[in-house]
Amino acid sequence: MNVKAYGAHAGQAPLQPLDITRRTPGAHDVQIDIAFCGVCHSDIHQVRSEWAGTLYPCVPGHEIVGRVSAVGPGVLGFQVGDLVGVGCIVDSCKTCADCHDGLENYCDHMVGTYNGPTPDAPGHTLGGYSQKIVVHERYVLRVRHAESDLAAVAPLLCAGITTYSPLRHWKVGPGHQVGVVGIGGLGHMGIKLAKAMGARVVAFTTSESKRAAARALGADEVVVSRHVDEMAAHAQSLDFILNTVAAPHDLDPFFALLKRDGVMTLVGAPATPHPSPGVFNLITKRRSLAGSMIGGIPETQEMLDFCAQHGIVADIEMIRADQINDAYERMIRGDVKYRFVIDTRTLA
Amino acid sequence: MNVKAYGAHAGQAPLQPLDITRRTPGAHDVQIDIAFCGVCHSDIHQVRSEWAGTLYPCVPGHEIVGRVSAVGPGVLGFQVGDLVGVGCIVDSCKTCADCHDGLENYCDHMVGTYNGPTPDAPGHTLGGYSQKIVVHERYVLRVRHAESDLAAVAPLLCAGITTYSPLRHWKVGPGHQVGVVGIGGLGHMGIKLAKAMGARVVAFTTSESKRAAARALGADEVVVSRHVDEMAAHAQSLDFILNTVAAPHDLDPFFALLKRDGVMTLVGAPATPHPSPGVFNLITKRRSLAGSMIGGIPETQEMLDFCAQHGIVADIEMIRADQINDAYERMIRGDVKYRFVIDTRTLA
Repeated sequence: MNVKAYGAHAGQAPLQPLDITRRTPGAHDVQIDIAFCGVCHSDIHQVRSEWAGTLYPCVPGHEIVGRVSAVGPGVLGFQVGDLVGVGCIVDSCKTCADCHDGLENYCDHMVGTYNGPTPDAPGHTLGGYSQKIVVHERYVLRVRHAESDLAAVAPLLCAGITTYSPLRHWKVGPGHQVGVVGIGGLGHMGIKLAKAMGARVVAFTTSESKRAAARALGADEVVVSRHVDEMAAHAQSLDFILNTVAAPHDLDPFFALLKRDGVMTLVGAPATPHPSPGVFNLITKRRSLAGSMIGGIPETQEMLDFCAQHGIVADIEMIRADQINDAYERMIRGDVKYRFVIDTRTLA
Repeated sequence: MNVKAYGAHAGQAPLQPLDITRRTPGAHDVQIDIAFCGVCHSDIHQVRSEWAGTLYPCVPGHEIVGRVSAVGPGVLGFQVGDLVGVGCIVDSCKTCADCHDGLENYCDHMVGTYNGPTPDAPGHTLGGYSQKIVVHERYVLRVRHAESDLAAVAPLLCAGITTYSPLRHWKVGPGHQVGVVGIGGLGHMGIKLAKAMGARVVAFTTSESKRAAARALGADEVVVSRHVDEMAAHAQSLDFILNTVAAPHDLDPFFALLKRDGVMTLVGAPATPHPSPGVFNLITKRRSLAGSMIGGIPETQEMLDFCAQHGIVADIEMIRADQINDAYERMIRGDVKYRFVIDTRTLA
């Protein structure tokens, strides 16, 4: 079927209205009428060809929520009318150890919600800046939040799971002191989630002006990382650091804040490498630097349910589809609290 | 008491015979007649002031084995005549969480066997290139190997525990594929220990000439890391990598060999940083880069007992004390299989 979308024909071109097609639902497919789609920084990187391999036309968007409008005959888990979400993953090999473990995000053949390989026209997947999407039921998530929260649920599908997964994997919970570095789309979710998991949360920002906002998000303490004395006061105090900053930055001052056996996990991928971390910082306290990428489908469902139970949604600013190019510029300036969400009715 | 030793008066000076004093054993002290002392690369770094803060005269040596020759009245665990060892640690605060956990190596007040603070003359600790040493019983290890193995046991006190501790901490065992990078003093112990723990061991060397030697040490497979095809054949095959190479080198080709959730642990500290590791390599498979430093006292005893039980010792080349300066030059050239050990009778 024909569907209206928003995307770009080239890395240098602005996003514009596009007509795309979606496949007729197969046996295990769920067709979703998209209500809202969050705007992730990855969308900018990919649509502008800042990472290698972008295929055009490119329709970004992997923070998708909406309502089921059709299901294939083999679909058991979803019915027309269900509130659902789709995140960063729309397919994977379904047979490897990662898929078997419900960690489709680490499958070598994971297919991204946009710019991934597909037999559907035009040969690569097209994302959520569109009216409808058709996805294999394995990659469709149930949304249990109230419908009135739906727009603010959208960013959970990427920003939420990207921060939830490492917090769970490294077993953050009561009694832990957790640092969250960066207070943006990812960081604001990290603060809310770590707090809801029972940890004491210290937020780190380079900007004095974000202190109050980080407190409002639930941080027990806020440290301006440029202030050497404030940093020193937290030496060896943290069990885990969730570092959400994608811009290259010096990791060493943060390692110094970790206790013995502490872990700093990066969830942002800088375009150029961070300065090389000091090995002594790792060795002298058996610390680790780790990375984590979104999350698997079962844990994405677990995250959505956890958020519904704890009343957690993202802080969003709603935009029309034709505001997307301006929104990108504002995101690059850090001028958003904390996530733009496209109202897809404005595509019509 | 007066004791003969070998050490240096300055970073630029060669090592030479020195007369030093050891304290009379206190209530909890064990006095040891040193039989052998291994020669660690750290000895070179410190005696030559290649790391900050070397105090002179400097007597290196922290791979000490010998026989108890006196004990203080409060010593319960050791008797005159016992075969014992002393590693890198001769004191710590004994009250912090790390000491409480038997991880004195991570105590902020850990006192190194040489160049550490002490009330004894000359105000800093003097190491094992000497005839005797006096050490608080907490830091004295029991040696259960046959006395004929004693010289080859000495390197276990640093090279052995430095590799044993991370292998245990990251739970290496049967069914695991473990990489050991670098086949020197540390690496050759890493191969033997990982193998004895039941893992399948892949050794990595830059040198074609070390293939046979690594096999002889027990490696199931040897990869010359300069050979891109050989490396590619091992992509995503390893659960854990013990990286013993202290020289700065590109870590990324090794990350690519780790499975999802794989860990590479560094036990060598380069004088200048490694090239910055690629963040995508960490993020895309939830891999970690960690560091580990020697080991705690209880696990050092456990390591010695494990080695005695499995018939593991270091491969050594015995030297006289007056050969130490030449030995250092050979170590810098990598010309030793795999550890020099000083016969301390040659100090007399």
